[in-house]
Amino acid sequence: MKKLINHPDTVVTDALAGMAAAHPSLSVDLENRVITRAGEPAAGKVGLVSGGGSGHEPLHGGFVGYGMLDAACAGEVFTSPVPDQMLVATKAVDGGAGVLHVVKNYTGDILNFAMAAELADDEGIEVSSVVVNDDVAVQDSLYTAGRRGVGATVFVEKIAGALAERRAPLTEVAAVAAEVNERSRSFGVALTSGTVPAAGKPTFELADQEIELGIGIHGEPGRTRAALQPARDIVATVMDAIGSDMPLEGDLLVMVNGMGGTPLIELYIAFNEVSRYLAGRARIARNLVGNYITSMEMQGFSVTVCRLTDTLAELWDAPVETPGLRWGR
Amino acid sequence: MKKLINHPDTVVTDALAGMAAAHPSLSVDLENRVITRAGEPAAGKVGLVSGGGSGHEPLHGGFVGYGMLDAACAGEVFTSPVPDQMLVATKAVDGGAGVLHVVKNYTGDILNFAMAAELADDEGIEVSSVVVNDDVAVQDSLYTAGRRGVGATVFVEKIAGALAERRAPLTEVAAVAAEVNERSRSFGVALTSGTVPAAGKPTFELADQEIELGIGIHGEPGRTRAALQPARDIVATVMDAIGSDMPLEGDLLVMVNGMGGTPLIELYIAFNEVSRYLAGRARIARNLVGNYITSMEMQGFSVTVCRLTDTLAELWDAPVETPGLRWGR
Repeated sequence: MKKLINHPDTVVTDALAGMAAAHPSLSVDLENRVITRAGEPAAGKVGLVSGGGSGHEPLHGGFVGYGMLDAACAGEVFTSPVPDQMLVATKAVDGGAGVLHVVKNYTGDILNFAMAAELADDEGIEVSSVVVNDDVAVQDSLYTAGRRGVGATVFVEKIAGALAERRAPLTEVAAVAAEVNERSRSFGVALTSGTVPAAGKPTFELADQEIELGIGIHGEPGRTRAALQPARDIVATVMDAIGSDMPLEGDLLVMVNGMGGTPLIELYIAFNEVSRYLAGRARIARNLVGNYITSMEMQGFSVTVCRLTDTLAELWDAPVETPGLRWGR
Repeated sequence: MKKLINHPDTVVTDALAGMAAAHPSLSVDLENRVITRAGEPAAGKVGLVSGGGSGHEPLHGGFVGYGMLDAACAGEVFTSPVPDQMLVATKAVDGGAGVLHVVKNYTGDILNFAMAAELADDEGIEVSSVVVNDDVAVQDSLYTAGRRGVGATVFVEKIAGALAERRAPLTEVAAVAAEVNERSRSFGVALTSGTVPAAGKPTFELADQEIELGIGIHGEPGRTRAALQPARDIVATVMDAIGSDMPLEGDLLVMVNGMGGTPLIELYIAFNEVSRYLAGRARIARNLVGNYITSMEMQGFSVTVCRLTDTLAELWDAPVETPGLRWGR
């Protein structure tokens, strides 16, 4: 294992300390591994809390800030945070208007966020949850009943965060979060595996000229392995998979997301192929190209597509100021 | 070679087409491989042109936009663009106030930008150049007489771009660019090599537990190879090297830059160590943590430090709106 770390046991806390040092707009509770915006709670504002295993940076901590999340809980690499962390985060951001939990569909996250919501309810905090399950690759997966939650999480956090910033009530914020999830689909591809520091070796093995189609963000198996192909053919497989699950028409928000170890020049090549694929079928009205939900140093990419409405586009465009996503303020 | 590409011959044009598709604010001349801001030239504004080999994305094309570059020329991967490209870019952004060429110190870039400046002069365009040479690792290098130009390029482009946006004259824009370079130092470390698509194999080989200290952004040899160490020790070597060349005191702008294949979680760990190292010696007044000047899928990082003045800090904070760097507008 070749990593820029001090020790496998301190990866998450060292990285959180680095985030604290880099971003004065964030308040980092190293003991509880909770990142909140400075100035929380905001009175009368629905608080947005997400979290999950580490190793997917900038998700989730990098999306804490104006117009997006109020707090994020960091688990160990690829391991769910515990309910106590989620409760700390929920209490920290409760400004009296309730809290929305944005939960990726992995069994550990689902159970722990559910328990945290109960604990918060006991303390008189109203909590709603949205479960993100946008990955069309496989029906059930290694850590998941139903579909995995992947790239749409970024869209949900951004769009629901924008609505919460306008002081919309919890029911509306939860509804738009669910709507974004329902209108979004993803599919991922791995060229190489990442390595979990505590495991010390790659999560899976691929041959020199082999790729995995439908990979999960923790290296969960996809649909099939295939020979390395031109980007155009890989993207066609990805888009066919998405398009067979949701009509690719109208105005789309498209993210070409790097898995952590793929350089930006290759992501732009992939985006070009997505753009070619969609030409004449739909309009890419908004896009993101870069590393947003990663899998340690995995080489590969995913595509996430959201069918926009005018309202969703307008919320997407709203100002956001986080380490991982920033515009317009 | 395992890459998300169509063919080694089309890497640069496919990626440029992807940038064009992703960023409507840019105008991409695929034939000449020149990226300019839409709306160029801006009357009365000094035009900022940079460029170099591809494979360092987001540098340079990703830094074209409000408050930073007016145009960038893309060469083949790790290969200088040619004078004709630079001339096209220079003419495209000449709004009557002259053009500044931001040139990283590699022999090919130096020669080609010099020729382009002559050609532009023949056409009545005033051109100044700043040569960036911030890498303290080695005195001469594989493609360089003198020090290599690396991370400080990002600082030069941002700060000179901010001053040009205010319609400062060419002499002042060139002077601040030179000042930023003089006040900046960098040092890079490789954990793995990147692969140039046309070469088809890694540029260099490192053993399983071996790193290269002082690596160049094209894989040029550094000072020494060493055993893989904790991030804290690697960062100490990096900062000692920088600190032995420039006093680390006062207000600093610090970039912890990923080489392309290193995940963000590790970059935050490195930033934390830089922050610890500097504690009690200097203040990190501004920072960047992420992939800004990469070397294809190389795993590794570099640190760039600029000793700020109040003026430089204020120009750093000025609004910028590019694909790779965006804030405050």
